[in-house]
Amino acid sequence: MQFYRFFTDDQVKRIHEASLELLENVGILVHNAQARAIYGQAGCKVDTESGIVKFPAQVVEKARQSFVPTYTFLGQDPAFDKVLPQDGPVVVTGSSAPNIIDPKTGEERRATSIDIANIAYLINELPGFDVFSISTLAEDAPAGQFSLSRFYPALKNCKKPVRSNTPNIKDLEQVLELGALIAGSEEAYLERPFINHHYCPMVSPLTMDINSTDAVIYLVEKGLPVYGTVVPNAGLTSPMSLTGTVTLGNAEFLALSTLIQSIRPGAPMIYAVLSTVADMRTGNYAPGAIETGILQMAHTEMANYYHVPSGGYIGLTNSHVNDAQSGYETGMNTTAALLAGGSLFNMGGLLGSLMAFDFGKAVTDSEIAMNLKQIQRGMEFSEENLCLDLIAKVGPGGSYMSEKHTVKNMRKTAVLPKIANRDMRGRWESEGRTDYQTRAMREADRILSKENPARFSAELDRKIRSHFPNLVAGDAKWYL
Amino acid sequence: MQFYRFFTDDQVKRIHEASLELLENVGILVHNAQARAIYGQAGCKVDTESGIVKFPAQVVEKARQSFVPTYTFLGQDPAFDKVLPQDGPVVVTGSSAPNIIDPKTGEERRATSIDIANIAYLINELPGFDVFSISTLAEDAPAGQFSLSRFYPALKNCKKPVRSNTPNIKDLEQVLELGALIAGSEEAYLERPFINHHYCPMVSPLTMDINSTDAVIYLVEKGLPVYGTVVPNAGLTSPMSLTGTVTLGNAEFLALSTLIQSIRPGAPMIYAVLSTVADMRTGNYAPGAIETGILQMAHTEMANYYHVPSGGYIGLTNSHVNDAQSGYETGMNTTAALLAGGSLFNMGGLLGSLMAFDFGKAVTDSEIAMNLKQIQRGMEFSEENLCLDLIAKVGPGGSYMSEKHTVKNMRKTAVLPKIANRDMRGRWESEGRTDYQTRAMREADRILSKENPARFSAELDRKIRSHFPNLVAGDAKWYL
Repeated sequence: MQFYRFFTDDQVKRIHEASLELLENVGILVHNAQARAIYGQAGCKVDTESGIVKFPAQVVEKARQSFVPTYTFLGQDPAFDKVLPQDGPVVVTGSSAPNIIDPKTGEERRATSIDIANIAYLINELPGFDVFSISTLAEDAPAGQFSLSRFYPALKNCKKPVRSNTPNIKDLEQVLELGALIAGSEEAYLERPFINHHYCPMVSPLTMDINSTDAVIYLVEKGLPVYGTVVPNAGLTSPMSLTGTVTLGNAEFLALSTLIQSIRPGAPMIYAVLSTVADMRTGNYAPGAIETGILQMAHTEMANYYHVPSGGYIGLTNSHVNDAQSGYETGMNTTAALLAGGSLFNMGGLLGSLMAFDFGKAVTDSEIAMNLKQIQRGMEFSEENLCLDLIAKVGPGGSYMSEKHTVKNMRKTAVLPKIANRDMRGRWESEGRTDYQTRAMREADRILSKENPARFSAELDRKIRSHFPNLVAGDAKWYL
Repeated sequence: MQFYRFFTDDQVKRIHEASLELLENVGILVHNAQARAIYGQAGCKVDTESGIVKFPAQVVEKARQSFVPTYTFLGQDPAFDKVLPQDGPVVVTGSSAPNIIDPKTGEERRATSIDIANIAYLINELPGFDVFSISTLAEDAPAGQFSLSRFYPALKNCKKPVRSNTPNIKDLEQVLELGALIAGSEEAYLERPFINHHYCPMVSPLTMDINSTDAVIYLVEKGLPVYGTVVPNAGLTSPMSLTGTVTLGNAEFLALSTLIQSIRPGAPMIYAVLSTVADMRTGNYAPGAIETGILQMAHTEMANYYHVPSGGYIGLTNSHVNDAQSGYETGMNTTAALLAGGSLFNMGGLLGSLMAFDFGKAVTDSEIAMNLKQIQRGMEFSEENLCLDLIAKVGPGGSYMSEKHTVKNMRKTAVLPKIANRDMRGRWESEGRTDYQTRAMREADRILSKENPARFSAELDRKIRSHFPNLVAGDAKWYL
């Protein structure tokens, strides 16, 4: 198997060298004092007045020597553990939308912790998803429990790896406490840290923030799983050039990686991006555009050069409804990224450029994910699979329908989708002329109307609730 | 640029050799007597009683020596000429559906020559399409004018290359007469044959028909453009194995190619396929399945091995409406085929597994095609495009918005879609909460409400109509 490539080896090397030149000559504006200190100790030139950190090439090259080629997501249930890249494509929900499309009214509204519980349960059950990145915020969060109100309903209802971010170290520590309670002890949690952390400490162009950087440093020091995404937006925060945007994003990836490897050499990372091109007719953000896929492909080539797993927020849509646009934007960009060698896909369930979760979109994306996994499986070449004896036996003009070989393989050769319609038109009409979204919402309803098999035991739940007074209920509550 | 590959060089070679073994030992059932004679003269072993033709490997290998690496589509207007693979992806409408989704009622009905005229005009105007393969049949065809009633409205309203098939040699000769009238003379037409012919003479498994084979022989002998598509359907007409289906389809491609090259060595060809896996839960045809894309990718690797342009009916959907399924089926399979090196995409405008044309779907597929072309354009690597000076100038934390470089490149760096919505939700709501299909139908309406710039001159039209009495009107007539 050989990935698609835009670049020659020389071009990849040139983008790497150009990134080093930017880091050495232009540098990164680092707002986080702790990060500046770490960079200084690693050999960077820190201007404390301006906050600009400049990176001698050998500092970055030294950090590169401890990059590792895999990254692991652990779940509460080890059956759901995933290792990048070999278990890829690892398909993740999109995260942290403020809103949800209400499943009953179809109107957009603020999301709550009940929505998060419902979504967690759905993602636990949908076969295409590997990781639940907490899809929304929780408007009903009690004071001081902004993050607990997201992680508690998520972890209570989903045994797959759960992932998200926190706004500050206090919230992060609460979330890790929750992890330890679930694991039984802090030691047990550190053995299997099933909460997966993600931040965007790099703010394009060439800037590093305070709070997300704090969290990354904290987690890397503790040896807990964390990775960052770089998010240049061509025309606004990076050059209006695909190659220029990749170069700037690559420099930002190397800057963040140098921080991480300086803290703990060998800390696993993902080369994760959401590089986009702004629609300059309006200035609108366009993560659903085909350029997001093209940029992801190019970054993935760089990731392969560094031998770091690759992926990102790839497969988002700008559409506000789950329509043809939503389908082709998610479908084209994820397929493109996969064939360039991407293995992490933060793609599922969001409409309107990360603004709102939709249950039907999540069901759709699970089916798209099954297709991506089938492409990854690809052609299983073997002498037996050539079927020469079978072809000779059936002969010209014969039928394969009732052959033993057909019966034996008919359920495992192809994806058998539940929601995609393949009926003849007459049957489709007699069954109500549904579109895909209607059937996807029915599937969400079917799943969420059952008892949730993934829930915490009553005993564990009592322990958690007595540890954190005022906690939201955290239970899935379906009402379609 | 390097294409995605499933197979190693050895595996590709083994599929080629396995195909030769099938042709030598199992053979092809050839119903067409003329084809049997041509095969016999070329050195094949013809069993006149059974109709089975067996191919010594050296006969196929000799035919291979005259394969040519390009294929040209000519249009009435030379500005629309396309050469495969260098002008790829060449995007073509899906063809010969019996039905249309009526643009006014939304109901499916039989298609007419008026519909063909409307569609021809639309395809002439939609920027994503390169070739108009006549999308439907014409129910109103006068007796004896089955094919004229399709080609006349198509050629009257579209200056891009027009492509389709005919049921018999009499119809084919009428269509070529029409071509000569348009060109001014038979000689002028032979100089620039802007009608492009396509047939499916191979019927899986390993069978060659009578009528389509007649047409292929006729056209190749005349030096006119024609190519064939092979269409194995795993589980029914080929093994329930992806590798086995590729092997059988590849043998069929080689059999057809041997016929074509035996008639006229160096005749241009396309390695075109529509290999599918039947949904064995119901026996339903599933051209929208992801396996269609995976099989296309594998066939494309074989086409690259033979140095023949590659493509096929790729990007079809099973959906009966232009919804999320229609979007992701067309989007994923075309993207996959493109990144494996495919350059011909018979993808546009059809719903329900080739059963019905839909105007909104055609507009959608034009926008998907623009995205495919953008992927093909890819990363334009140059030292200038790295933008190192610009990145240094803007610096950490700066803005690219008002840079000269941004203004200069803002209209050419990214695709600027007309139908895909990128507005914030508030604006989308205030403008009517439309879905993609609604806006796509409006775009079809906008185009078809204008005067058609591509129409025949009145003088030419009189000449044609006096040559063919009783001809359908052939004019676009829009009524939304």
